[in-house]
Amino acid sequence: RFGEAELEDQVGVVTGLAWTEVGGELLTIEGLMMPGKGKMTVTGNLRDVMKESISAAASYVRSRAIDFGVEPPLFEERDIHVHVPEGATPKDGPSAGIAMATAVISVMTGIPVRRDVAMTGEITLRGRVLPIGGLKEKLLAALRGGIKTVLIPADNAKDLADIPDNVKSGMEIVPVSRMDEVVRRALVRVPEPIEWPRRPAADKAAVPAAEGDVSAVTAH
Amino acid sequence: RFGEAELEDQVGVVTGLAWTEVGGELLTIEGLMMPGKGKMTVTGNLRDVMKESISAAASYVRSRAIDFGVEPPLFEERDIHVHVPEGATPKDGPSAGIAMATAVISVMTGIPVRRDVAMTGEITLRGRVLPIGGLKEKLLAALRGGIKTVLIPADNAKDLADIPDNVKSGMEIVPVSRMDEVVRRALVRVPEPIEWPRRPAADKAAVPAAEGDVSAVTAH
Amino acid sequence: RFGEAELEDQVGVVTGLAWTEVGGELLTIEGLMMPGKGKMTVTGNLRDVMKESISAAASYVRSRAIDFGVEPPLFEERDIHVHVPEGATPKDGPSAGIAMATAVISVMTGIPVRRDVAMTGEITLRGRVLPIGGLKEKLLAALRGGIKTVLIPADNAKDLADIPDNVKSGMEIVPVSRMDEVVRRALVRVPEPIEWPRRPAADKAAVPAAEGDVSAVTAH
Amino acid sequence: RFGEAELEDQVGVVTGLAWTEVGGELLTIEGLMMPGKGKMTVTGNLRDVMKESISAAASYVRSRAIDFGVEPPLFEERDIHVHVPEGATPKDGPSAGIAMATAVISVMTGIPVRRDVAMTGEITLRGRVLPIGGLKEKLLAALRGGIKTVLIPADNAKDLADIPDNVKSGMEIVPVSRMDEVVRRALVRVPEPIEWPRRPAADKAAVPAAEGDVSAVTAH
Amino acid sequence: RFGEAELEDQVGVVTGLAWTEVGGELLTIEGLMMPGKGKMTVTGNLRDVMKESISAAASYVRSRAIDFGVEPPLFEERDIHVHVPEGATPKDGPSAGIAMATAVISVMTGIPVRRDVAMTGEITLRGRVLPIGGLKEKLLAALRGGIKTVLIPADNAKDLADIPDNVKSGMEIVPVSRMDEVVRRALVRVPEPIEWPRRPAADKAAVPAAEGDVSAVTAH
Amino acid sequence: RFGEAELEDQVGVVTGLAWTEVGGELLTIEGLMMPGKGKMTVTGNLRDVMKESISAAASYVRSRAIDFGVEPPLFEERDIHVHVPEGATPKDGPSAGIAMATAVISVMTGIPVRRDVAMTGEITLRGRVLPIGGLKEKLLAALRGGIKTVLIPADNAKDLADIPDNVKSGMEIVPVSRMDEVVRRALVRVPEPIEWPRRPAADKAAVPAAEGDVSAVTAH
Ligand SMILES: [Ca+2]
Ligand SMILES: [Ca+2]
Ligand SMILES: [Ca+2]
Ligand SMILES: [Ca+2]
Ligand SMILES: [Ca+2]
Ligand SMILES: [Ca+2]
Ligand SMILES: [Ca+2]
Ligand SMILES: [Ca+2]
Ligand SMILES: [Ca+2]
Ligand SMILES: [Ca+2]
Ligand SMILES: [Ca+2]
Ligand SMILES: [Ca+2]
Repeated sequence: RFGEAELEDQVGVVTGLAWTEVGGELLTIEGLMMPGKGKMTVTGNLRDVMKESISAAASYVRSRAIDFGVEPPLFEERDIHVHVPEGATPKDGPSAGIAMATAVISVMTGIPVRRDVAMTGEITLRGRVLPIGGLKEKLLAALRGGIKTVLIPADNAKDLADIPDNVKSGMEIVPVSRMDEVVRRALVRVPEPIEWPRRPAADKAAVPAAEGDVSAVTAH
Repeated sequence: RFGEAELEDQVGVVTGLAWTEVGGELLTIEGLMMPGKGKMTVTGNLRDVMKESISAAASYVRSRAIDFGVEPPLFEERDIHVHVPEGATPKDGPSAGIAMATAVISVMTGIPVRRDVAMTGEITLRGRVLPIGGLKEKLLAALRGGIKTVLIPADNAKDLADIPDNVKSGMEIVPVSRMDEVVRRALVRVPEPIEWPRRPAADKAAVPAAEGDVSAVTAH
Repeated sequence: RFGEAELEDQVGVVTGLAWTEVGGELLTIEGLMMPGKGKMTVTGNLRDVMKESISAAASYVRSRAIDFGVEPPLFEERDIHVHVPEGATPKDGPSAGIAMATAVISVMTGIPVRRDVAMTGEITLRGRVLPIGGLKEKLLAALRGGIKTVLIPADNAKDLADIPDNVKSGMEIVPVSRMDEVVRRALVRVPEPIEWPRRPAADKAAVPAAEGDVSAVTAH
Repeated sequence: RFGEAELEDQVGVVTGLAWTEVGGELLTIEGLMMPGKGKMTVTGNLRDVMKESISAAASYVRSRAIDFGVEPPLFEERDIHVHVPEGATPKDGPSAGIAMATAVISVMTGIPVRRDVAMTGEITLRGRVLPIGGLKEKLLAALRGGIKTVLIPADNAKDLADIPDNVKSGMEIVPVSRMDEVVRRALVRVPEPIEWPRRPAADKAAVPAAEGDVSAVTAH
Repeated sequence: RFGEAELEDQVGVVTGLAWTEVGGELLTIEGLMMPGKGKMTVTGNLRDVMKESISAAASYVRSRAIDFGVEPPLFEERDIHVHVPEGATPKDGPSAGIAMATAVISVMTGIPVRRDVAMTGEITLRGRVLPIGGLKEKLLAALRGGIKTVLIPADNAKDLADIPDNVKSGMEIVPVSRMDEVVRRALVRVPEPIEWPRRPAADKAAVPAAEGDVSAVTAH
Repeated sequence: RFGEAELEDQVGVVTGLAWTEVGGELLTIEGLMMPGKGKMTVTGNLRDVMKESISAAASYVRSRAIDFGVEPPLFEERDIHVHVPEGATPKDGPSAGIAMATAVISVMTGIPVRRDVAMTGEITLRGRVLPIGGLKEKLLAALRGGIKTVLIPADNAKDLADIPDNVKSGMEIVPVSRMDEVVRRALVRVPEPIEWPRRPAADKAAVPAAEGDVSAVTAH
């Protein structure tokens, strides 16, 4: 059953899409949260670029914590382990970034991930979704694996012209440009923001405003 | 006597199965728990993928501690050393994952491991058992070594058709898909769950529910 | 839309200019500040020289904190993550130094960066701007990407003679020799210095005087 | 005089046996205990497998501390340095394991090691003695060096048939299968166990029972 | 203007001399001191030997702190960053040692460095100046760069015979054998020693006497 | 003057002897002690085996502290830096061990080292002196450098037969087998032991007895 869509919606389990020499593949990403001291462990025969994409994903989530209803101190009181099974296969590249971020958001919020959603896209620190390679092979793998909805980077939408019609009609393919959209589509319910007092020292050097408010600080 | 089933059921000693160029082999895995500060040591000429499988196994056990009757703070008050003897031989691969998890559960609970059980299977953070290679060679090694019961990944059950009948009749071969089943078969008694108060900060961002209850949070 | 000027002026997002074998490119640099303990994380498939330029940029900012209106203890109470997206591409060299420094100043002060300004230049610990290579390719990339103003090292001004006229007339090209000038041009408003008491132990071994006052301690 | 049996029974000085391309050799192992904080230093041009055998030996001793009359907190209040002289020669392999454990037990207990005993054998975390290679060359080296008693792994006893009679009659050759036997033969007196209160948290998850009592927890 | 003498006397900025395949070059060394915890950062594409020369220089300064008027606790309350600009060029070798030491002394004391002095020489822990290679190329570079005074190791004075007369008449070339002389020539004013109470525990195991007093403890 | 005997007896400065492809050489070893926290720094383009010999030397001194009149807590209150000048030359091998130990003893006790003594020999943790290679070349270098007394390992005394008479008559050549003898010959005065109370926890697991008393714990 491995390599197919999960049987249940689970907390911390996200389906990514990998592109290998022999075609596309489903890539299960497992996140786990434990009582701890803020330590992050990443395993699964991952090369440096994939490890860095987990680091970027985690910083994105940490900087948006209150938007996701997570009290910031929780990051210091929990350890997180992100694992990509099938340790015999080396894995690399930035394209699992949004799946990594989704796994971290799911374990931090306790909200399960829809089992029939797969996704591919590089993530930036601001939660932007950057384009990836191998779209066709990844979509075929998603179809084969029983996936119903695939989130792809908006900048890859132009590549959909080359995708066979049966693939496009067999699944919902959703171009996304920001993590906000990923979260809305992938989690079984949308996290609710919380209020959290800013620390006094932060008054002058403010943390970045919430995404939806960015234009408010634009100056021209 | 090395390379054969153990003479006694011992705490922390698990028999794994390795696949080498010259055939299968029994792989003794030793776990040891000492008063300490939560440090994990792994030795035995292990390459990175096997080291990572110990890390994943340990996180799985830590996240399920109360299901196994282990008070979570114990992880901070003990050091664990996992060693795979015969240091002259390099060892790699993820297939000893469930044996590693069993060794950690045994030392944390103090429950001995059945000496006549061997096992092979990659473990995931959620305790799923993933398929492995070299099944035939591993089963032959188990038979030669006097093993009575072999736990194999459920996804390898299809490969049993190629295994000689004398091997299949000489041992009980048990396909397993979750660590729950491994623990029930491998330990001399089943660990009993304990109650443990959730920390207040964890109210909103819950730790994953117990496996048996996962479907309860499924949303469709 | 990636590879073009940003749509909004944002905190911590700076447009650098890279020089690759196939021409110049816009290089988005993302800075993020989080509650923390003074940890600096750098990601984005960066080689050692680019990592060191972030280190130098951060020390420059830290040593000038009060000139930028940042209370020095803030450096110990925040973590900073600097990421350069497009993880599939290795990135190296010191020429993103002033962009790195601008990103750090922006996140520490909370002042957004003008979306239509790009920049290239090595930074020194004192905030001097050193010359870079590939000026022509970088300017072409800036023009293509819709940039309005490009900051270049003053020591590269002599190379402008070789730049096509349409490039020079299509953008404002500003030679700069110190970070002071970069900050004035790149941020949407100029940071205001604050008063901060010197620690007693610092009385004898003074921290460097502010840039504008350096000549006052010149001795000949 | 180097390469011969020691002149005195000393605390922490153990004679191992090495197997090199040019024959067997005595291998002096020096242990030293200093006031400290539980740090372990290993030197002597040692490769990874020999370093790991010291780690396994130290964990074995630490887990058996009270059996050897050592109060467990001592491990946190002392530093241990294990050195293998003749730094010009790289050294590797697991076969010095029981000698390493003997050195650590000697420095922790303050009981000297018999100068005329040499030993070879891999150690496991449980104190089992595993077979080694190069038995003949090692025994010849021991004889040449004036050793009176050589401890060898029980699983190597079958190889004694190939050893010349003059070697076997010139020294006492003692097959051993557990560290208990090594300690009894190698130290000038047998360490006496002490009583030590278990910490409350350890009630449920017991540390492994003493070796002699292992069968008591066997379940079949 | 890079590659020429500085325009002002600045704190922490020292001109060294490098020897490359294409001739000699001025090497700007920048030191920066920040409030901190005694951390030393070194950047600038430096290879190991140059990094070690900074370490030796820093220990020399730290051991002589009171001779330079620096209160010893300051080393624990400040971070120091030493950077050698032009990150695109790898740099190695011990010959920038006295320039590194001068940079550290300048930032610790707050005394500016004369902008028209350049220097080359390996430093020892005791502040001795050891000979270097490439003297001719370095002196030519100094002359080209507008330097007025060059400090060279006393043991290189014999090589001056091979230096063209116009070079020797164009600059003052000063052989030095100890850091004391370097400091007197390179800083705009000589640091004044302070009194500092010895800690009681230091009574028996004295810190090294001041350089000028070394003969007083000579015993023959 | 580098490469010759020192002009004064200094604290922490020891003359070793190196053996290179082009003959023997004097090797100056510099030790420096600073207020600190027990950190050891080693520099000078040293390869691993030479670094390990410094580690062994330091543990030897630390374990014998009270024999040398050094109060044990001093090791936690001081940092030590050992540097071997002439950073352009890589250095390796264990034969500078006794010189390293002498440097550490000198800085810890504050007793200067005789400037006209050179030495070569590997050190063990117990302070034994092991034989070295290149004796002839090293003695020639010592003679050339104006050394009056050379300490060599007792096990190299047999090699003196091959040394030219003029070398043997030009210097005092002293075979030594223990660090005790090295210290007596190399320091300008012999350190005096102090009394130091054993910590209660050390009652049972005694630190090794002083060298002169070792036979008292011999058991046969
Ligand atoms: Ca499932
Ligand atoms: Ca938002
Ligand atoms: Ca057994
Ligand atoms: Ca369960
Ligand atoms: Ca934007
Ligand atoms: Ca300023
Ligand atoms: Ca002896
Ligand atoms: Ca026992
Ligand atoms: Ca200047
Ligand atoms: Ca002085
Ligand atoms: Ca001298
Ligand atoms: Ca003594």
